[in-house]
Amino acid sequence: MSKRALSITREQDFPEWYQAAVRDGDMAETSPVRGCMVIKPWGWGVWERIQAELDSRIKDTGHDNCYFPLFIPMSFIAKEAEHVEGFAKEMAVVTHHRLKNEGGKLVLDPEAKLEEPLIVRPTSETIIGDAFQRWIKSYRDLPLLINQWANVVRWEMRTRMFLRTSEFLWQEGHTAHVDEADAMEETMLALEMYRSVVEDVMGIPVVVGEKPENERFPGADRTYSIEAMMQDGKALQAGTSHYLGTHFAEAQNIRYQDKDGNLSLAHTTSWGTSTRLIGGMIMTHGDDDGLQTPPAMAPKQIVIVPMLRGKPEDAELKTYCVALAADLNKQSALGAPVRAFVDMKDAKPSDKRWDWVRRGAPLICEIGPRDAANGQVTFIRRNALREGEKIKSNSVARDEFVSQAASLLEAMQKDLFDAAKSRLNANIKTDLKTWDDVARY
Amino acid sequence: MSKRALSITREQDFPEWYQAAVRDGDMAETSPVRGCMVIKPWGWGVWERIQAELDSRIKDTGHDNCYFPLFIPMSFIAKEAEHVEGFAKEMAVVTHHRLKNEGGKLVLDPEAKLEEPLIVRPTSETIIGDAFQRWIKSYRDLPLLINQWANVVRWEMRTRMFLRTSEFLWQEGHTAHVDEADAMEETMLALEMYRSVVEDVMGIPVVVGEKPENERFPGADRTYSIEAMMQDGKALQAGTSHYLGTHFAEAQNIRYQDKDGNLSLAHTTSWGTSTRLIGGMIMTHGDDDGLQTPPAMAPKQIVIVPMLRGKPEDAELKTYCVALAADLNKQSALGAPVRAFVDMKDAKPSDKRWDWVRRGAPLICEIGPRDAANGQVTFIRRNALREGEKIKSNSVARDEFVSQAASLLEAMQKDLFDAAKSRLNANIKTDLKTWDDVARY
Repeated sequence: MSKRALSITREQDFPEWYQAAVRDGDMAETSPVRGCMVIKPWGWGVWERIQAELDSRIKDTGHDNCYFPLFIPMSFIAKEAEHVEGFAKEMAVVTHHRLKNEGGKLVLDPEAKLEEPLIVRPTSETIIGDAFQRWIKSYRDLPLLINQWANVVRWEMRTRMFLRTSEFLWQEGHTAHVDEADAMEETMLALEMYRSVVEDVMGIPVVVGEKPENERFPGADRTYSIEAMMQDGKALQAGTSHYLGTHFAEAQNIRYQDKDGNLSLAHTTSWGTSTRLIGGMIMTHGDDDGLQTPPAMAPKQIVIVPMLRGKPEDAELKTYCVALAADLNKQSALGAPVRAFVDMKDAKPSDKRWDWVRRGAPLICEIGPRDAANGQVTFIRRNALREGEKIKSNSVARDEFVSQAASLLEAMQKDLFDAAKSRLNANIKTDLKTWDDVARY
Repeated sequence: MSKRALSITREQDFPEWYQAAVRDGDMAETSPVRGCMVIKPWGWGVWERIQAELDSRIKDTGHDNCYFPLFIPMSFIAKEAEHVEGFAKEMAVVTHHRLKNEGGKLVLDPEAKLEEPLIVRPTSETIIGDAFQRWIKSYRDLPLLINQWANVVRWEMRTRMFLRTSEFLWQEGHTAHVDEADAMEETMLALEMYRSVVEDVMGIPVVVGEKPENERFPGADRTYSIEAMMQDGKALQAGTSHYLGTHFAEAQNIRYQDKDGNLSLAHTTSWGTSTRLIGGMIMTHGDDDGLQTPPAMAPKQIVIVPMLRGKPEDAELKTYCVALAADLNKQSALGAPVRAFVDMKDAKPSDKRWDWVRRGAPLICEIGPRDAANGQVTFIRRNALREGEKIKSNSVARDEFVSQAASLLEAMQKDLFDAAKSRLNANIKTDLKTWDDVARY
């Protein structure tokens, strides 16, 4: 048995530890639908933070968000399959549009069979390409810079929450350009947006580079990715950006009239990142007590647990905690207002503490009547949770805590990144010259 | 032929005018997928504003966002169908999970037929109810206040963009409570959130009330809605909130242990609003020149069109416009930073002007070299576009424009609401006592 907050340690079984961290950290749970997960409040809050950070970068660099249909006609997919080697065929297919009641049982209505099956989008290349073909007439329409936030489905036989699920959430950028130089600049710009969000906000150090030919996106001329290293020493692909050449433009007839009046094929790119990033965050920062959510990612950065005892004195304690949260929320950390929260839930304070430890809330304040009387704050720092086996609790004057909270959060953000960066660096070997050298590791 | 920016007037044919306003306003277009639309940048930007406004109210009132699977097992739907009269059966059904290549043709793989068909969610009542049944054990877990932003699919034979499409985007709130009083309070709270976003932000006046029995959500004890009136005099349901009693809790076995240790059924609510709101905004404020996007909703509130002529002097003009936008963006209007934008697109300035008129950008500045030289701003106010037949252009000193921009936007927001409110009031008849009275209208 683990002496930590999770029932299993990373050392004992990393994949099992991961499942426990996800489940006990209130991130997600399996659903009755095979391969699909339920994303729970803390997990969804992290996704909202990722979306906000990435979306602002996408907009600041001139991209427009749009939304394209969930369904793709099978003929579109067939056209892509003709053009693309290595095309995957595991996808959810809609064949009917009605159920009917037959003898008290709900069944498929055979009269409502679709003439052409519809595919639940595994990616939107073909349907967006179809729009590009309509929208692009002249070089004046280029570059066309489009992004979409959406759910996609790729049927998976073996799933792991956030890392590989049949349905997942992502963003997909699709752009068209006059030439290779412009499209390559875009490809690298997208990659840099990913690096920036993943390193600077999620605190996950990455290696940036080009994928070898056998790992390229089918149909791409060049595929670039950012790769993070998990605590089990394995790499996790955390975002990809593809220069597609004129390959897709040809398949989808995306042509523009250039300045001389000649028709040319557009050069296109696509780039995507997904809820998988959340899995990467867990496996980069988590420990045997659960998640460590980097302050810039935490939906709640400072959680205040009042040590309520179901007595009249509770009222005063609650007032103290609410005022503390209000003062903290006036501070600014990591470029945004501090997110403090009082957990008033009707549950044992120690249970609440451990719930927040497992979620990885950066700072957890446990405020008792004595703290309130003395104008103090007693708190746990999630990334310095223990001293030996014991929980390390800190006490400071209330006003000191309020004035130092922002710099404490910023220091934690840096500490998490630095720790992960050291691990990554320690695992980068530069003295490997032959296959035998590699095999030694 | 219309002498206005759209090819058809409201008077001539309101439904046709609506389609033209949507299309020419860069809101959405039909897609090659029957019943599904492509939401374009301006339309998506409006939806982002609606989401931001509603989401902050949802969070401020203690609700947590989650995400549930896109697919629902057919058995879940069957269970609901048993319990719910008036249950609709038009939905997209997934029956296979793989395509295969047969003689060079992509076809359904019969070996990849699902044992149980999956339904693309028409709403998430059953899958969320299933989670509630697992999550709720004790009165301490109540109220449980969950919201989800998602796409849903209801197969529609006749579609109209934003108003009725097979796929649409929405938010669905689902909550569970100890008793009727608490659940009813929630039902009304959700309704008030809708009223506030629709009236105070979208500028659409509504009538708030309870639906008659025959318009209740199937299975609800009580259904409330906000109803807006479009310019053709027709009502548009703009948001609904349902008190479901213990009906759904019974079907889905959502029970909690009360303070005395007895098992009780939870009282549940659900409430939703969707991209249909965008249609309501168009039909409330639009005119024969296209959309009028209320300033609080406009992705770009002030659009600056430099009158570029492809000459060296353009550089100076661009600088003037960029500096103007930067100064405007430092202002604050309607509780948020002003959103100003310089349209540098390589196109004729007059074409750009009309594009922004049709999108309903609140203030459109057309800046020529003379404006720049004289430190002036020439602008059109979208809701006072014309004087007789002619476009009404205003000129003021640059600094005056910057300092007054916020109050101008706020006045426009109020003007749009007031105009719509007058129309609504003029169409409310209080002297109808008999059916004959009603028939007169």
